[in-house]
Amino acid sequence: MVSMESAALSEGLPPTSTKNKGLRNIVVADTKVSSIDTKNRRILYRGYDILDLVNHSTFEETAYLLLYDKLPTSGELDDFTQSLIESRTLPESVINSMRSRSTQASPMDVLQSAISELPDYDLDDMLQDHEEEASIRRAISIIAKFPTIIAVWDRIRKSQVILEPIKGGSHSANFLYMLQGKVPTKHVERIFDICLILHAEHSFNASTFASRVIASTRAHMYACINGAVGALSGELHGGANIQVMEMLLEIAEPYNAKKWVYDTLERGGKIMGMGHAVYRAIDPRADVLSRLSKKIAEERNTKWYGITEQVEQATKRYMKEKKKAAVYPNVDLYTASLYYSMEIPMDLNTPIFAMARAAGWSAHIIEEKLSQAAKSVLYRPKADYMGKKCGPMGCEYVPIKNRNQDFKPCPSYEWKR
Amino acid sequence: MVSMESAALSEGLPPTSTKNKGLRNIVVADTKVSSIDTKNRRILYRGYDILDLVNHSTFEETAYLLLYDKLPTSGELDDFTQSLIESRTLPESVINSMRSRSTQASPMDVLQSAISELPDYDLDDMLQDHEEEASIRRAISIIAKFPTIIAVWDRIRKSQVILEPIKGGSHSANFLYMLQGKVPTKHVERIFDICLILHAEHSFNASTFASRVIASTRAHMYACINGAVGALSGELHGGANIQVMEMLLEIAEPYNAKKWVYDTLERGGKIMGMGHAVYRAIDPRADVLSRLSKKIAEERNTKWYGITEQVEQATKRYMKEKKKAAVYPNVDLYTASLYYSMEIPMDLNTPIFAMARAAGWSAHIIEEKLSQAAKSVLYRPKADYMGKKCGPMGCEYVPIKNRNQDFKPCPSYEWKR
Repeated sequence: MVSMESAALSEGLPPTSTKNKGLRNIVVADTKVSSIDTKNRRILYRGYDILDLVNHSTFEETAYLLLYDKLPTSGELDDFTQSLIESRTLPESVINSMRSRSTQASPMDVLQSAISELPDYDLDDMLQDHEEEASIRRAISIIAKFPTIIAVWDRIRKSQVILEPIKGGSHSANFLYMLQGKVPTKHVERIFDICLILHAEHSFNASTFASRVIASTRAHMYACINGAVGALSGELHGGANIQVMEMLLEIAEPYNAKKWVYDTLERGGKIMGMGHAVYRAIDPRADVLSRLSKKIAEERNTKWYGITEQVEQATKRYMKEKKKAAVYPNVDLYTASLYYSMEIPMDLNTPIFAMARAAGWSAHIIEEKLSQAAKSVLYRPKADYMGKKCGPMGCEYVPIKNRNQDFKPCPSYEWKR
Repeated sequence: MVSMESAALSEGLPPTSTKNKGLRNIVVADTKVSSIDTKNRRILYRGYDILDLVNHSTFEETAYLLLYDKLPTSGELDDFTQSLIESRTLPESVINSMRSRSTQASPMDVLQSAISELPDYDLDDMLQDHEEEASIRRAISIIAKFPTIIAVWDRIRKSQVILEPIKGGSHSANFLYMLQGKVPTKHVERIFDICLILHAEHSFNASTFASRVIASTRAHMYACINGAVGALSGELHGGANIQVMEMLLEIAEPYNAKKWVYDTLERGGKIMGMGHAVYRAIDPRADVLSRLSKKIAEERNTKWYGITEQVEQATKRYMKEKKKAAVYPNVDLYTASLYYSMEIPMDLNTPIFAMARAAGWSAHIIEEKLSQAAKSVLYRPKADYMGKKCGPMGCEYVPIKNRNQDFKPCPSYEWKR
């Protein structure tokens, strides 16, 4: 395009190299969505401490706060909740696509395919994609449909009858009902609701950043959310909560935990669920999740909390004995035992993470789209070329007829700028 | 995880702010895939000038070069081509999902859904996702299936009979056959082949960067490619070639072009296809595409090249008259007229871009995965929090029962660190 603001930004300035460090210390944007106060071990969504939200709020209210940047009045929350309820039902063709899939399909892959079918039913709206109101309406639809997609898929792959969403009830209760076929107790509903609040947002993590990179090209919201789901599926990100559960299953009993942890660390292995890229102390979410996991374990009489606690203690003890830096549980550690004790299939841990995080992603995508509309700058970083460069004009192209068995390709060498 | 390299990287260093500039001047990684030599107006894929590849190579050879970092011998290229041919067929369930969709669905959305169904048939392999050989095998499958997905969808939405992929022939010829129902002439096959070479790779653009962010979490290759497709769909990125065609249709005749361009620029509008974030002179790809577009227009006797050329000239003249910085055609400008003259539906322009770029994306994802395995650092930038922060401990949570009509949310203010 003719207006060249984006290019002009880089002219005359030497490039800044932060390579191979994952942008860990690079400020890429302003945000009003959330802040992580590592020093005081606090997470603020739109300025509000998540512990206040855990104590007093619901997932619906938290999602409202994230999307609208304010706490709702009673009437506003009722309207918002009603919109979510009305958007729960999936188009029939999305369900048909799921029915045609292999039952071995990963729920995260199924989620990705389904998300990209939703815009088929949203064509009128698409023209206004960059307007805040249309984006929020779309976000509500996505947040409402995530639980349905996950629950419907789990029932399809188990050859169970698909249940219609409830025409009422909380986001938490509706999901557990659709998944497990019975309305949860108020106690379990609330515990799961708190899990959703805790997973709803966490600043510029890899999935949120991926969604913002995609949003910066003016792709529609479904494409942005889809990219975020893809990033979340990685084992270094949302996929870690499945790996924690695999670890717990392998350890099998609390009294095995210490030996397992010590053996693993001795041979240079990793303890899933311990340590985080941002926190130097306990992640405030992990603290809450640990208490919830304990409650569920007591109620359901399972061993998974017990094993997890032993893993945490053994890891800390090992690090102390070896005089290494202390490590703390992250958000994944106690989520695994909690969901497993609730009889949720472990490969749904990451999709459930996605279902909660959809609220935060949406808020970030809307923020990126609005800021994008003002500045027209998409994300396009630089890289240092370190490959073949045989001469000042590049490598000589050898025609294929002259490339026989003895053909030596141009050597790759480290090229210094 | 216990090993905390990623966190340690940022410790003790002040953050570097490059905010709201799209990382335009930030070096984020080393790469051996390609380099853009803006000074000499050259693009090098793995060290080789794309003009050499355009003159002597094919898309298949270029894809081999990008994936394996070397030019193939004749035998290697034959094996590679054979692997592509054998991977062209789509699983029946992917076709069934497409059949169940609304015919109004965007081809880019269809492509995204289909990509996330492919891993269902690749479960054994998934365990070795981080090994180069498995990744290359997966890349071949994706590159081979993209044209089939696009052509099958176009025939489904037009209620045409779906054609089986040819058990031979080039990538270019097979796609045009599956799409249009007839084997193209050698001349047209070669022109389209060159288009694929030119679109196959372009360093750390937004879609490639999105795919690398996703790869950095260790998500599987399908999820990474899916995110790239999403980013490419945006109108500031791959979606621009559709907007160019919409502009040409609106201008309708060559003699309208000058007035249309001047009017648009006078009212502050943009000319699609002119200007680029990286190039200060003509994009070397645009130069080739312009000549190919002219050839096709002459052969098919269409007006679209003529209009495009008038748009280019009028835009340049306007900028000169207004003493503004010169602008040049980008890769999208002549692609639009070229594909339209070939009777390709214009909303397939971006999917075709994706089909070519799948080669470059795959090379980058493999590079990211290999580098990721060594450093374990996912992309996680910082952001400056500029939202509500009413006091040193954040905003006070007001219980919902106390929020009536007069409830004033906490004010948002610019918070200086």
